[in-house]
Amino acid sequence: MNASTGEDDVVLQTTRASLKSWVESANDAKTDFPIQNLPFGIFNGGGSDVRRVGVAIGDWIVDLAALEASRAISVPYTAVDDDGNPKSVFRQKRLNDFVALGRPVWRSLRSQLSALLSTGGGTLRDNVELRERAMVRQSDATMHLPFEIPGYTDFYSSREHATNVGCMFRDPENALMPNWLEIPIGYNGRASSVVVSGTPVRRPNGQRKAPDDARPTYGPSRKLDIELETGFFVGVGNALGTPVQAKDADGNIFGMVLLNDWSARDIQQWEYQPLGPFNSKGFATTISPWVVTMDALSPFRVEQPAQEPEPLGYLFGASRAGVDLELEVLLKPKSADSAKTIARTNFKYMYWTMAQQLAHHTSGGCNTRVGDLMGSGTVSGPESAGQPGVGTFGSLLELTWNGQKPLDVGNGEVRGFIEDGDELTLRGWCQGDGYRVGFGACVGEILPALETADADPVV
Amino acid sequence: MNASTGEDDVVLQTTRASLKSWVESANDAKTDFPIQNLPFGIFNGGGSDVRRVGVAIGDWIVDLAALEASRAISVPYTAVDDDGNPKSVFRQKRLNDFVALGRPVWRSLRSQLSALLSTGGGTLRDNVELRERAMVRQSDATMHLPFEIPGYTDFYSSREHATNVGCMFRDPENALMPNWLEIPIGYNGRASSVVVSGTPVRRPNGQRKAPDDARPTYGPSRKLDIELETGFFVGVGNALGTPVQAKDADGNIFGMVLLNDWSARDIQQWEYQPLGPFNSKGFATTISPWVVTMDALSPFRVEQPAQEPEPLGYLFGASRAGVDLELEVLLKPKSADSAKTIARTNFKYMYWTMAQQLAHHTSGGCNTRVGDLMGSGTVSGPESAGQPGVGTFGSLLELTWNGQKPLDVGNGEVRGFIEDGDELTLRGWCQGDGYRVGFGACVGEILPALETADADPVV
Repeated sequence: MNASTGEDDVVLQTTRASLKSWVESANDAKTDFPIQNLPFGIFNGGGSDVRRVGVAIGDWIVDLAALEASRAISVPYTAVDDDGNPKSVFRQKRLNDFVALGRPVWRSLRSQLSALLSTGGGTLRDNVELRERAMVRQSDATMHLPFEIPGYTDFYSSREHATNVGCMFRDPENALMPNWLEIPIGYNGRASSVVVSGTPVRRPNGQRKAPDDARPTYGPSRKLDIELETGFFVGVGNALGTPVQAKDADGNIFGMVLLNDWSARDIQQWEYQPLGPFNSKGFATTISPWVVTMDALSPFRVEQPAQEPEPLGYLFGASRAGVDLELEVLLKPKSADSAKTIARTNFKYMYWTMAQQLAHHTSGGCNTRVGDLMGSGTVSGPESAGQPGVGTFGSLLELTWNGQKPLDVGNGEVRGFIEDGDELTLRGWCQGDGYRVGFGACVGEILPALETADADPVV
Repeated sequence: MNASTGEDDVVLQTTRASLKSWVESANDAKTDFPIQNLPFGIFNGGGSDVRRVGVAIGDWIVDLAALEASRAISVPYTAVDDDGNPKSVFRQKRLNDFVALGRPVWRSLRSQLSALLSTGGGTLRDNVELRERAMVRQSDATMHLPFEIPGYTDFYSSREHATNVGCMFRDPENALMPNWLEIPIGYNGRASSVVVSGTPVRRPNGQRKAPDDARPTYGPSRKLDIELETGFFVGVGNALGTPVQAKDADGNIFGMVLLNDWSARDIQQWEYQPLGPFNSKGFATTISPWVVTMDALSPFRVEQPAQEPEPLGYLFGASRAGVDLELEVLLKPKSADSAKTIARTNFKYMYWTMAQQLAHHTSGGCNTRVGDLMGSGTVSGPESAGQPGVGTFGSLLELTWNGQKPLDVGNGEVRGFIEDGDELTLRGWCQGDGYRVGFGACVGEILPALETADADPVV
């Protein structure tokens, strides 16, 4: 058997639209977690405070540490700790150890899980005792960051977003910087402040300066914003000095999450020249807890938009490098009972692909490591019409045109930027035939800024 | 006994100029590692390939894992691994575990080591068997990165450097950006590509575009440069949402190293707008292997330069926040037998202090972690006269004014920027009365760029 054909067969087998699970909630057309998905995350709860690796199926989590202990699944390689002793890659508080075992292991496990959870699989379904140990309701679990994240990079790959920002702050006639169509522009973000969905986000204090102020002041950001992004996790690293080729780069990616790149626009505007955004982005970046694998996304790959001029050779990638992934943003004011959708767009509009981002990132020799997170940049679609209050732009900066056109967020409230107590939610899913491969929610509520001795109040 | 007075006493006792060691090479006035220094590093060799914590003394390394195993030293707390089992903080391939035990432990150990290595200390000196196990010649050892580095941030805190760059690329009349005198400007660097002194550095390929070229090309950087910097390691982290106050920030710093922020100027010039440097800095950052503690640097603290305008309140720090630290850069062409000093300056000229950098970094709530590395930014002094070929500027960009005034590097060779085979060395030391607290060398040799299918040759 040809190993790579075997692996491709796994992807085809496990993503069939006709697959059903004996876990009933997984067969709901609206669940984010049908049997075609099988995303990975780190959870605790369900009778144990130990963090461990789980896979989402319908309303449930399958505990891989418990399955492994019962030999209901196995990985073909043994991981070792620093001292060379064998260890379980599933009884871990991070996915890094499992993912470092490599793509053939990811696929072997996917195949085993798909068989175990499909209507034909009896090993888990028919073993009440094992089911009680290995199946945890999502409502009984707490999710944690899926990876220990050695590096976080944020790109800027939506042409529409870059054009909108250029129109607002630079010259509408030359909205795109001269380098934008040649380089998948990116910058290093702050990995330490990446948090998992549900973590409250405190409004940052920082330096802000209006153009006609003599000097800046230090105090709460008055232009707190979201950025609707996706992120991908590196699953196969590269050594320093050894670039990843664009045509091979997809093979180095483990999976994707939703990512909210919270941004303090007033702090950003004053600090960003000449070395880029820093404190305006370093107070929190929220990601969704379930990592949807590239294998699960395989049926939803599409051609990326045409690139003109043709990119330089090192950015020549494989075809079907885009993903048809619906995205939306919801805002719930503290006073409201429910959230309102304020933006809706699709990841397929992104100009630069994930493979091109990774190839560019490593093209000078920079090394990447398992668990590195790469943000897409704000996803803004080509139109911003549609329903009242709903656009295709992925930030309030764009949706309200820097606060000039406040947005109706329901409940009699309008927003230029985010207010304290607002809860922001990102959602995303790939629509299949009768099912969808979803990402779950990426949620954060804004807490008031810390009081500081030298801060002036929010106006 | 008042614990903090006791700790301050430790610093006073262990930095006395009159202290001598029974390790003879430690008493040489020109050694970087007298008994007043006691810097920490990670090494292997001397009969064992296991990486472990060592302290430099003269020409030797004291193996702390061996000392601990013989109970010649002890730490008052026990560290535990992920599973809660006790572990040695010295039999580790990184300093993070030791440093995480906290400042009282650093100082307790410093006191023990000073006593053990001073002329009065017999426990190690008089035990031949222990000395053979615990003392390794530096020439028999290989040094490694001292910390696992969760985050790397690079600042831009020399007024002279920022002014030089502004004069060259922007407006000499307004060389400093409007934000420069208000903010210790910094950006997130790439932690994965930080390497230890001695690691060869491969010239990066990347996009370069001359102003009159229609499009960029991909190929070897033609303007490869150094940046003479220092770096500090965070020894006490802060939680997300909890800023470090400038007056307290020195207490969060464990120690300092020399740092060469290799920079590809042509790649940087084309890529840096609007999100800052990325591939131009992400191919390698070299640090010296020995971390000189803030306790060892205590006698050399000086007032920083006057700051006008007075900084905003959150940047008000303690006094004597500078360090009188001599710095030099040497270049050795492949063809030459010896290196030539091409720059000499002092860290005391830095406008923004380490405490202000850390306070600013965390002022919006960003968290830091033990082992985070913060680069100072290029250290450029106020004058650039002196000996022929020797200036006070910390980069070739400045020393040669963007290549326009090539530098005589000896052996009949001149340099605008770095050529393949050149070896660059940073050195630094604090001059005491009859001794110096030195940093050792920060060295890197440049290897030719990888050949690539679509690269044009170096001109």
